[in-house]
This record gives sequence, structure tokens and C-alpha cells, in this order.
Amino acid sequence: MKSFTEYLKIKTKNRIEFINITEEVERVIKKSKIKEGLVLVNPMHITASVYINDAESGLIEDYKEWLRKLVPDKDYKHNLTGEDNAFSHLMRTIMGRESTIAVTNGKLDFGVWEQIYYAEFDGQRDKKILVKVLGE
Amino acid sequence: MKSFTEYLKIKTKNRIEFINITEEVERVIKKSKIKEGLVLVNPMHITASVYINDAESGLIEDYKEWLRKLVPDKDYKHNLTGEDNAFSHLMRTIMGRESTIAVTNGKLDFGVWEQIYYAEFDGQRDKKILVKVLGE
Amino acid sequence: MKSFTEYLKIKTKNRIEFINITEEVERVIKKSKIKEGLVLVNPMHITASVYINDAESGLIEDYKEWLRKLVPDKDYKHNLTGEDNAFSHLMRTIMGRESTIAVTNGKLDFGVWEQIYYAEFDGQRDKKILVKVLGE
Repeated sequence: MKSFTEYLKIKTKNRIEFINITEEVERVIKKSKIKEGLVLVNPMHITASVYINDAESGLIEDYKEWLRKLVPDKDYKHNLTGEDNAFSHLMRTIMGRESTIAVTNGKLDFGVWEQIYYAEFDGQRDKKILVKVLGE
Repeated sequence: MKSFTEYLKIKTKNRIEFINITEEVERVIKKSKIKEGLVLVNPMHITASVYINDAESGLIEDYKEWLRKLVPDKDYKHNLTGEDNAFSHLMRTIMGRESTIAVTNGKLDFGVWEQIYYAEFDGQRDKKILVKVLGE
Repeated sequence: MKSFTEYLKIKTKNRIEFINITEEVERVIKKSKIKEGLVLVNPMHITASVYINDAESGLIEDYKEWLRKLVPDKDYKHNLTGEDNAFSHLMRTIMGRESTIAVTNGKLDFGVWEQIYYAEFDGQRDKKILVKVLGE
């Protein structure tokens, strides 16, 4: 059994931003030399998500607007701590934390349209994404 | 370490449909001969989910109605591409993409009521589900 | 490859309750002697979630109130079976089932604020949480 870990570094321009990280994850898998296994990809932050869906700009706009509806502006208790990012924690909850993905023949075992996204809901700061490959 | 991969094939009658795939996944685990490890189950499509919950028809009807409330009909930007399935992407997001499940003593390490479902939100076409077992 | 499985036991005082299980999971990882790998943590019940977010009491109150909005009281079909916990299944769906977490150098490979929570939505009964470590 082999394992290989790399931390991707990211800084977003906007507070809410969606970034396609598929090629970065593929690069890490190649570097790991693991042919059969699993790759775990997750933000190391609690206001961001790694999710899998379409690389289509309209859908990404739909996500942003839909999340604003599901997580309306209000006086969240978390913000009494001095934070203003309660909404970021809740949006990340809808989009999920991590993606676990199959590695087959040294590659992401993906369907035609599957792409890996990092969705940040409290950005404009340095952020880290963990990529861990396990297999052989 | 051993790994074993199989792709389940499915075609749904309805656009939105929930299918219990627990026995199919158990069959793949048995075939893999892996006794201790993890099994990853995910759709290879971005408008479908693999989730774990109750095999109870009333709950499945509740899911369908609830998802329609959380993902209301509207002019989604994704549909400007000629698609009409923006709602399917969003429903899949609520239900999640993959399930990662423990394999212990050669079996799904499940509680009494846990069952694996494939939920399709843009069906009536050929679809593939990835099942990958990793362990020993 | 090594694997190690332990089942945590929990009984909640309230029907809806959030419990920080980070130290319990760390204890299992230590006991497993696995240095590099993955740990899967999931409820063995279908009305509860294992999720990762902040150990901040205000946020936990926000979660509870927000879930009540996303899962309104109504005559769910599941409750025609004699159950009254349809809402619990739906809240668990929002919060997710399992967390898959990297183990690096024998420890949870976590960012500063990541904590593991068990969220129960139909408690006051004995419950089990599966912790499975896979690696080497």
C-alpha cells in the first residue's frame, strides 16, 4: 500500500468563488504513482467545499443564487462571536465538505462531465486543500 | 492491498427515480473477495446521487416532494445552454454524490436500516454507477 | 495494509443533539497504530449525521434553527407508517451521512478549526457510530 499527500494553496479574489481544481488533482495522482485506489480531496477550512459537478458558468451562477435563497441573511448566533460568516458555514454544509474519488489505471475514474470544484464562501485569504491518494 | 472495480448499468423509466442498489453492491463486494476495507459507490453522472437511507416508499415520496420545494421551478441560467436539467444538478447536490461505506468480514458494515439508493434526477437514459472496493 | 474498526456508543438526552466526537476518533486512530491512511466515521442510523465544522455553540444553535426552516413541519408520508421522524431523515440528508478524513503521521490531518460532530435528529435511544481506519 502506498499513500501520497499534497496540500494545494489557493487565495480567492472574491469572498464567494468557485474554482475548477480537476487538473491539480490529476497532477497529484500522477505524482503519487498510485494506479488503483482512492483519492480524498477536502478543504482544510470550514467555510468551503470540494464538490463534483459541471464546469458550466451558468450552473455556477445558479448555485450562488440558490445558496443565497437556502441561506437567507439574518442575525445568526454565530455572528455574535464577532464573525460575519455564519452564512459561509451553512452554504458549505449544503455543498458538502469532501469528495472521495476512485483512481483507476492511474487516473480519476470519472464520467464524461465530472469535474472537481473548490467552492469558497469566505475567501480573500490564504486557503489550503488536502489531496490524499491511497492505493497501490 | 487489493482493489476491485465494477460499473453497474441502469436505465430509469422515469426522469426522477429512486432505486435500491444494496444487493448489487453486496454482490460486487463478494466478488472482490475483500474482507476488510472501504467501498466507494458513486454515479458517473452529475444529475444523480448515491445515498444511504430507509427502504420505505413513503419516505421516498417525501424526498421527491421536499426536493421540489428546495429546488423550485425557475429560469435557471444553466438552462440557457439548451439544457432543461438545472434542477437535477441542484437536487443531486442536496442528496450528495457518493457514499463511502465500511466493509467488515466481507460485508457492508451497516446498521439495521441502512440501504444504498441510486437517485436519478435526469433519467430515461443509460447511466453508470461506479463501485470500487479497496482493502484486503 | 492494516485496518481497524471500533463502534462508539452514544445515548442522547435530547431528541436533537450535537456531540463533538473528535477526541474519540483520535483515540481510535491512536489505538489502530495506522500512520498513513483514511478514517471513515459514520452513524449506523439513518436519522443522524457525522459532519465536520466549528465547535462553536452559536453555530450549533444556528444549525438547529436553519434545519427547522429547511425541513418544515408537515404531514410527511413516512409518518403514515406510525413513525414521527420523517423530519429526522431529511435533516440528516442536509447534514450528510459520513465523513472521510485523512490520517497523516498517525493523526487527523485537519485544518485549525475542523472538528468532528455527531448530529442526532431522533435520539434518546442507544446509538452506534462506526469508526474504521484503513492504511499502514
